[in-house]
Parts: sequence; structure tokens; C-alpha cells
Amino acid sequence: MKKYLLTPGPTPLPDEVRKALALPIIHHRTPEFQKIFIRVNEGLKYLFQTQNDIFTFAGSGTAAMEAAVVNLLSANDTAIAVCGGKFGERWREICQAYNVKVISIDVEWGKAVEPAEIKRLLAEHKETKAVFTTLCETSTGVTNDIKTIAEIVKASPAALVVDAVSGLGAEELQTDKWGVDCVVAGSQKAMMLPPGLSFCSISPKARKAIESSKLPKYYFDLRKAKKALDKSDTTFTPPVSLIVALAEALDLIKKEGLENVFKRHKIMAESARGALLALGFKLFSETFCNVVTAAYTPEGIDSTQLVKLLRDKYGVSIANGQEQFKGKLIRLAHLGYIQPSDIITGISAIEKALSELGYKVESKKSVHAAERIFDNYFKGAKK
Amino acid sequence: MKKYLLTPGPTPLPDEVRKALALPIIHHRTPEFQKIFIRVNEGLKYLFQTQNDIFTFAGSGTAAMEAAVVNLLSANDTAIAVCGGKFGERWREICQAYNVKVISIDVEWGKAVEPAEIKRLLAEHKETKAVFTTLCETSTGVTNDIKTIAEIVKASPAALVVDAVSGLGAEELQTDKWGVDCVVAGSQKAMMLPPGLSFCSISPKARKAIESSKLPKYYFDLRKAKKALDKSDTTFTPPVSLIVALAEALDLIKKEGLENVFKRHKIMAESARGALLALGFKLFSETFCNVVTAAYTPEGIDSTQLVKLLRDKYGVSIANGQEQFKGKLIRLAHLGYIQPSDIITGISAIEKALSELGYKVESKKSVHAAERIFDNYFKGAKK
Repeated sequence: MKKYLLTPGPTPLPDEVRKALALPIIHHRTPEFQKIFIRVNEGLKYLFQTQNDIFTFAGSGTAAMEAAVVNLLSANDTAIAVCGGKFGERWREICQAYNVKVISIDVEWGKAVEPAEIKRLLAEHKETKAVFTTLCETSTGVTNDIKTIAEIVKASPAALVVDAVSGLGAEELQTDKWGVDCVVAGSQKAMMLPPGLSFCSISPKARKAIESSKLPKYYFDLRKAKKALDKSDTTFTPPVSLIVALAEALDLIKKEGLENVFKRHKIMAESARGALLALGFKLFSETFCNVVTAAYTPEGIDSTQLVKLLRDKYGVSIANGQEQFKGKLIRLAHLGYIQPSDIITGISAIEKALSELGYKVESKKSVHAAERIFDNYFKGAKK
Repeated sequence: MKKYLLTPGPTPLPDEVRKALALPIIHHRTPEFQKIFIRVNEGLKYLFQTQNDIFTFAGSGTAAMEAAVVNLLSANDTAIAVCGGKFGERWREICQAYNVKVISIDVEWGKAVEPAEIKRLLAEHKETKAVFTTLCETSTGVTNDIKTIAEIVKASPAALVVDAVSGLGAEELQTDKWGVDCVVAGSQKAMMLPPGLSFCSISPKARKAIESSKLPKYYFDLRKAKKALDKSDTTFTPPVSLIVALAEALDLIKKEGLENVFKRHKIMAESARGALLALGFKLFSETFCNVVTAAYTPEGIDSTQLVKLLRDKYGVSIANGQEQFKGKLIRLAHLGYIQPSDIITGISAIEKALSELGYKVESKKSVHAAERIFDNYFKGAKK
């Protein structure tokens, strides 16, 4: 059975990436690897839209999130964390694990944070050292207004840290122009790689924070990593095959052009939303994102059953709701190496599965939605 | 140019592993992945020779070393660290980063630790919570006597933690029979995988230590990881493709049989030593290991030049000496997916390169050494 990954990570791998993964391994302390690593670091700067240093870790996205916390802060420092979903809450959890005083902004799941609330808290807590937030909250399909948040945080002494693990490369994020001090990312999303690499960029403001940070660290220590990076080297043995594949993936992104990559994600997301609405789903949030669409299943349909049927019978993987929304929401991702054919496949499988689960579907509506996907794509896309 | 990796990690990848790396990616929260992960965990138990839990991290070997420290200890705890090379010293560095009081046993590089010294220190410092040591010290090519050390540590309240990153699967290590509480390993060594995964096993004694540990952690938190592992799951998104490839590699190890894998490594190591001696090298240590042979270059030969010439002209990668031994030592690894042909290739390239660098080589001696490799291998190996 052919399989389709419409999940918010891992995402499908382009052939170029799969071929690179299968190459004979090379040693990491050689001119050959160094050349690739230099190419990767240049490609990452293009993708992150920054001239800041970008550090690459062997680790999942959470590893780079922890690296941001332990390098920027000291115990008993104050930080603001925007908690509007599972991943926002992770910021709070990591801070708490390191005895950082966290001021939580508890945003209702499905809503974006009000930037004014961050402004108010920063004014009230002038001792705040960092603001942690999320570009696309994968658990809810919401995008936060990082541009406005960055304007606010820039005026304070705090560093702005953005979890863009799922969002980077799918949703606009102008690291330098907006002034984001630390962008955290992961390989298995819009970067079109397997999981296993994570990243964080460090602005001059964030670098100052690193100098005075006293939290304990070794593997994540960015002071040592900086010395290595300045020689295009890594502190510890890097995941060579993933980095060789990353060079290929970044070339693909550069070739398509970041703007076109964003545009493609936007069209896929819009089409998915349109098709889901036509099938009787109700969108979970008002602030959409290009990464994943969260939607309530139609009346009487259990999302756990739907997800299982799609996977086992149709080879289509989508995600269930998380935490309190398990069984109620589906999360259909349109992330990474995804084209109209993938969305069509996903939508048509959902239509079939709904019908099997006893929900009456008007099939013409879904076909119409599918057509609209193609129309939009081929009108909008660069040849 | 064909390339040969005779380095102590990364090591060459078998075709089965390369093919697995190139497979389409699958989602990690599926019965399909879970089945593979269960197979991996069984294979790891065979390789580690243990019934203890083994935790898999996205991270390099140092990540799992740090996981051992932060999960077993609290600030101001006392620990003994055996420092007889770069990797032994890493234990001390990690402990110091977390404010653990470290009693260092500074062993001369090239020597194994005296187990009696550990016994003496444990008697003197009854508050010792952990003893950190190394199976094969990759920087010096020395094997420590873990069996005897384990007997000593078992009688104390301290947990024994062994860095077997390079040694596991190449050198005998009977985790359960000897009583090693925590074995740390990495993927890019005898496991025949790319770098990017690391592991630690946890004995019941180590688990007790985890319960009272107060060092801060999140990504490395084994309490959370245990809950996930009990459901054959992982705390964070695992490096799917590396784990799929690991399943293949562990199958290869099981098929060859652990005893035969050790025997093969032993014969390769003996042959390499014999050939290097015949070429005029002087062995660096008296306690050999099956992972890597460290040897002083013949009079007048700079190891940095030799390593470069071997790599650039002959496609043979070996390692230079580390720290104070850079330029003086070579480190020829015979680790992982290595057969007699690889050793012959390496030795014959070294012979050519030495001669080009102006050192007079008696070529017959090297040929004789090569023959001995084959003889030993085909006599000793199981059909």
C-alpha cells in the first residue's frame, strides 16, 4: 500500500534526501564534511532569514528548546511563557525544571496570544529576562503574531525566543527584520528531513544573555558550540548522514525559493480548510496556520476511529487531537514536501472513511474542493 | 576514489543499513513503528547483555553521558571519575558542569586504571554516589577492567556507570553478569550506524538513584522516558530513520552472533597491531582494545602528515592522536563493519604513505602481516 504522511512531523522525504541518507558515511573531521557543513550553515541562514549564528544539535526539537532555556537564563530568573497548546506549555515545563520563575500567559487552546498581554506583563515585570512563544502551535493549528510580539519585546531587555519547530519554512518568520533573538527549529517538518536534528539561532542580544547565564549545561553549551561553529565544526560528533541530507533539502528550498515555498504551503492549507469545511468539519481556530489544520470531526464521528481507519485502510496518516481534544479533533498537516496530489489523496480518503463510519457525505462538494486546490496551485505557482 | 573508514566512529555502514536509511519515512506513533521499536529494544538487550531498560536518545554519545549524570546525581553529591584520556575526562567535565564533587583518578594516558585505586577511594569516601569510567578509551586505545571494577563497586552504595560508547559490541561487556548499573553507548561505532543515537541502560540500583536525583533536566529526564518506554514509546519524536536502520543493524549482529562479532574484532585488532609493529610503529599502550590501536609513528614521521596523505591520496581515513599526542600518534580503528580486506587496504596504504614520507619500509614484513590477518580470520571465523 502506498503511504501518505499528512502529519505535522515527520513529513515525507524527497528522493534527493532519501538518496543522500543512503550514501556511504564520511568522517566529520575532514575537509569533505566541512565543505558540506559550510553549505548547510549558509542554507540555514537563508531559511531562517538571518545573519545570526545557527547552532545544530543532534536531538529532537525539544533538545533545542532546552538549549535556549539553559543558555539564556539562570535559576530564579523571570521569564514569560505563552501557553496556548501542548508546545507552548513545554516552554513552561522546561523553565520550571530549571527553577526559572515563569509567568504563564494561558491562552485558550485554539486562540492566538494577544501581543498587548505580553506588553502589559513586560511593563509589570521589568526583571523579565526572556519571552518564550510559538510560531505555529502544532497542537491547535494556530499562528501567533510574532512580528508584533517582536516589536514589543525588542523595546525591553528581554530576549524573544520563538519555537518555530513546526513553523519554520512553512510560515513567514523574518528573524532579523522582525528582531527575533532565538529561533528554535526541527528537521522533520518543513525541512523535509527525518527527525534527529534541531537548531537554534542566536542574536547579539541573546549572545549577551548567554554570557551571564548560570544554568548548568554541557551537551547544550552554546559557548563551546560557538567556538566550534566559528571553525565550521561541531562540539560533538554530528549526525553526519542527516547533515548530508540537510544540504540537499536546503538546496531544494533555495531552488524553489522561500517565497514560493511559503506560497505553496499557504495554498495547500487554504485548500485543505476548504475541503474539510465542505465535508462537514468545523475549524478549531480562527487564526489559521500553514502547518496543520485542526478541525472538529462532523457530528457523531470519533476522530480516533477516523484516524485509525484512514491509516489502516487508506494508507493516509493524519494526526488526532492532543490532550483534551483526543477523539474530537483531527489535525491534517500540509507540511513539507507536499503537493496538491497529496491533499487530494488525503481529502478523498477522509470522504470515503467518513462515509464508512456512517456519516452522510455529499461527494460532489469534496470533488469541487479538490478542483479548487489544483486551480489555485497551478495559477499561483511559479513554473 | 573508493573510501575506507578506519576511524573510531563514524564507521562504515553495511548495505542493509544504508537501504533502511533510504526508506520512505514512517510516523512514530503507529503500530508499524512500535513493532520496529520493540524489535530494537529486544536487539539492544542482546547487544548490551542485559535485562535492564535501555533508553534511546536522539543525540550524540555525550548526550547519553550527560543523561547518566543528571539522572543519577544531585548537586554536591560525590562521584569518582576515572580520567585516563579525553573521554574519561569528559565524565569529570560533565560532573563539574552540574556541581557534582568529583574525585578524579588521573590515570596516565595509555594506561588502564588500577581497580584497587577505586576500591581505596570508595572506602575513603563512603558518600560516593557514582563511579564513572570507560570501557575502551578511544583517545588512547586502552581497555579498562570493568569486570573487576564492577565487583568492587557492587559492594558499595555507588552506581557504576561505564562509557561504552566506542566499546559496546567490540569488547566484552557483560552488563548483568558483571553488574554494571549504567552502560552508555553510541550508534556510530560497533552498531554500524550513522551518528545521531545514544543509549543508556539502567539497573535496579541505578533506578533507585534516579528516584532521589535532584539535578535539573527535561530532555534527558529518565523518569518520563521510563513511562514512555513501558509503552514501547519515546518521550519525544525519535529519529525514525536511524531507528529503522538500527533494527537492521541489530539483526546483523544477532545473525553473526555476539561472540563471533567480538572474535572478529579481536582478530582485526591483533592483526592491525602485528602489521603496525612490522612497519616500525611503537604501540602506545600495554592494555589493548578491540576498538582502536594507538601507535607512535616511526622516527621522523609526523602523524598529522601521515593521516592527511592517507586520506587525500589513498582514500583511507584513520585518526590522529588527540590533545598532546596530535602529530605523534596514529589511531587505527578496526571497529564495526570491518573485515580483513579493510585492514589489508589500510596497512598497505600506510606502508606506501610511509615510504613516500621518506621512511624506509621493508615491504615483505607488511605483506607477511597481511597474510597473518587472513590466516587468523579464516581459521577463527564461523562459516
